[in-house]
Amino acid sequence: MSVEPFDAVQVITAKRDGGVVPEDALRWMVDAFTRGYVSDAQMASFAMAVLQRGMERDEIRVMTDAMIASGERMSFAKLGKPTVDKHSTGGVGDKITLPLAPLVASFGVAVPQLSGRGLGHTGGTLDKLESIPGWRAALSNQEMFDQLSDVGAVICAAGSGLAPADKRLYALRDVTGTVEAIPLIASSIMSKKIAEGTDALVLDVKFGSGAFMKDIDRARELAETMVALGTDSGVATTALLTDMSVPLGLAIGNANEVRESVEILAGGGPADVRELTVALAREMLALAGLPDADVEAALDGGQAMDVWNAMIRAQDGDPDAALPVPRETHVVTASSSGVVTRMEALPFGIAAWRLGAGRARAEDLVVHAAGIDLHAKPGDRVEAGQALFTLSADDDARFDRALDALEGAWEIGDAASDVGPLVRERITA
Amino acid sequence: MSVEPFDAVQVITAKRDGGVVPEDALRWMVDAFTRGYVSDAQMASFAMAVLQRGMERDEIRVMTDAMIASGERMSFAKLGKPTVDKHSTGGVGDKITLPLAPLVASFGVAVPQLSGRGLGHTGGTLDKLESIPGWRAALSNQEMFDQLSDVGAVICAAGSGLAPADKRLYALRDVTGTVEAIPLIASSIMSKKIAEGTDALVLDVKFGSGAFMKDIDRARELAETMVALGTDSGVATTALLTDMSVPLGLAIGNANEVRESVEILAGGGPADVRELTVALAREMLALAGLPDADVEAALDGGQAMDVWNAMIRAQDGDPDAALPVPRETHVVTASSSGVVTRMEALPFGIAAWRLGAGRARAEDLVVHAAGIDLHAKPGDRVEAGQALFTLSADDDARFDRALDALEGAWEIGDAASDVGPLVRERITA
Repeated sequence: MSVEPFDAVQVITAKRDGGVVPEDALRWMVDAFTRGYVSDAQMASFAMAVLQRGMERDEIRVMTDAMIASGERMSFAKLGKPTVDKHSTGGVGDKITLPLAPLVASFGVAVPQLSGRGLGHTGGTLDKLESIPGWRAALSNQEMFDQLSDVGAVICAAGSGLAPADKRLYALRDVTGTVEAIPLIASSIMSKKIAEGTDALVLDVKFGSGAFMKDIDRARELAETMVALGTDSGVATTALLTDMSVPLGLAIGNANEVRESVEILAGGGPADVRELTVALAREMLALAGLPDADVEAALDGGQAMDVWNAMIRAQDGDPDAALPVPRETHVVTASSSGVVTRMEALPFGIAAWRLGAGRARAEDLVVHAAGIDLHAKPGDRVEAGQALFTLSADDDARFDRALDALEGAWEIGDAASDVGPLVRERITA
Repeated sequence: MSVEPFDAVQVITAKRDGGVVPEDALRWMVDAFTRGYVSDAQMASFAMAVLQRGMERDEIRVMTDAMIASGERMSFAKLGKPTVDKHSTGGVGDKITLPLAPLVASFGVAVPQLSGRGLGHTGGTLDKLESIPGWRAALSNQEMFDQLSDVGAVICAAGSGLAPADKRLYALRDVTGTVEAIPLIASSIMSKKIAEGTDALVLDVKFGSGAFMKDIDRARELAETMVALGTDSGVATTALLTDMSVPLGLAIGNANEVRESVEILAGGGPADVRELTVALAREMLALAGLPDADVEAALDGGQAMDVWNAMIRAQDGDPDAALPVPRETHVVTASSSGVVTRMEALPFGIAAWRLGAGRARAEDLVVHAAGIDLHAKPGDRVEAGQALFTLSADDDARFDRALDALEGAWEIGDAASDVGPLVRERITA
């Protein structure tokens, strides 16, 4: 006879009818799913009920805590310095983690940045860094701890030991039309960040065509949910809502994004990348108790670059080595003179993906030199025949499908339309 | 590479967001589920989306037609007489099929009544008939056809060849909290009735404590959905909404329900059982083109009883054989004098089930002589110490748990409260 204290149908039915699932029942549901007692079909039905009916703030905290309890929990308490992490919901040309982690660490704060690989049109931080000869993503917990202690910043692969139940649930949601449930998105992102053991967290929640959330209202709901969840779980959390309707910076790919990141660390680089790096660094340092840190000076004075070099070397990378260059390039020029009025992030992301910068399946390899370099951005004046952007790939057979994706993705007109600020809102507990 | 024309996530997402699933996509979904290409988890998520978002009339027709297409389809066209069937959503003491099928057949109409076994607190028609020595539920399609031709009425087990996809979907819904989705209930019931090949169908949709639908509004919605579905699928369909807050008749069990049915066929029996039998027979005969058939005369004149005897004999049963009698009985008496004001169907159904009349799992056996005989009904005057009802079982150890279920299930007061009519509404296309 079963000695299970709850029944999956009872839990599903409570949520299905708009009720609140009691804490002990919700913890049991996640645990029983991890053990295989609750089936994929039952969990999929529950996930759809959550998508339709939502979850209360406390249910999300409990669900997340149960996810964390399915695996190991790290702690950086013995480091003797504050830890602060950042998470972006993903966008096109989003390389911010690369300059940001060493910049924040240059103020004596530890930045344990567990990252992932890209899937679909948004790139992955580890894929970008793997453009650097020798650099390795996989670190043991001890290596990570030592690097945080010595260098202050680490960007590495999240081990499979953190919130394994989330990994299984995410794979299930992916095939059952339940990815979009905000309580489950929040719980999935935050369970790994909380299990990682950071003291504080800054979220870059993006909206617009190149973001997972197209709509600012949904992005705000996700940001508010995650800020509440972090706060309730003892992690000081702030979120910025940022515009992802235009690619971030001028580089979309892997090696070219590393190059652009190094420009930022050298005090240069595109204005939007610098603006967002500085804004996120200020939020992270404020949560670490350094609200008055002079972030711009650390970029312009080389302190952030010193940490970058040490961070890359600590993971066996050579920060001075040449980055891979593409075998084939194709330049797209302006067909008329005028002002660039639109450059849609999503098609540029898809085009870079098709050029080889991203992967369709988890087992695919990325081409580090593939991608797109923009030579103009919305608001810039261009003359007919002037280069607008360059496509790069290992094989020129890839250009046609990339250009298909870019059909109608940019526009040249008389005057640029007004665009709002990059950082649109700030959400705190 | 897959050559599937649709993707399960696409179908789930359309329904999840409140859209209409196109006909070809919905047919593919059911077919791919039957083939095992669409997983249980995907179908469970889809079922929950249907429960939350509903389905349009035409989607329900397509879904049902796809269920039918998963198996065989019978035809009685060669019989040369109209066919009409009846389905009840199930209740406590609901033996109406037993007198109804021979009564309707006595007018020259064929009644192909494919029935099931009971599970939980509602009894199964086949379980009741198996109280009769020798009677067998399993007939081949040819035997069924021959009996419809010769006798006119057949009550037998539905073969597994009708709508097998429905069987798989029902089992999945049972464990994923999606049983209650009205479009799926309607599709499940009607797919088997339509595949059976009947020309016309009368539905007895019950509401109240002893029914699957407690609430009359939900029962009406189900009835309207099924009438529309039958009509759209070429089966003339009418529904009656009937009250199931009080047990039907005086007998709850198996052998005792057969005894009560024979009383009805002899022109006697409890008034409510006769009333509902007559009302449903009139609807069935009207759909078969005989709106003026004198139904009461066929009960009082013995024509219905003649068909009953022939029908039981055709399936190797002996209509004159003694029915099983219980080993143990326990009489419950009135503790005070007054009028019976309440007798709740659900606890009486659960008590009969616990006495052995029903089964908890499909593989359990029922005790044919177990059950409850009522000696008074709401509205009847009783004196203190007078017998109210008798429990019957094979083992007196069963009485305690049955009496637990009956705690507070009846009341004796000063005057009976008004109850509405048994047949509350009639729903037609």
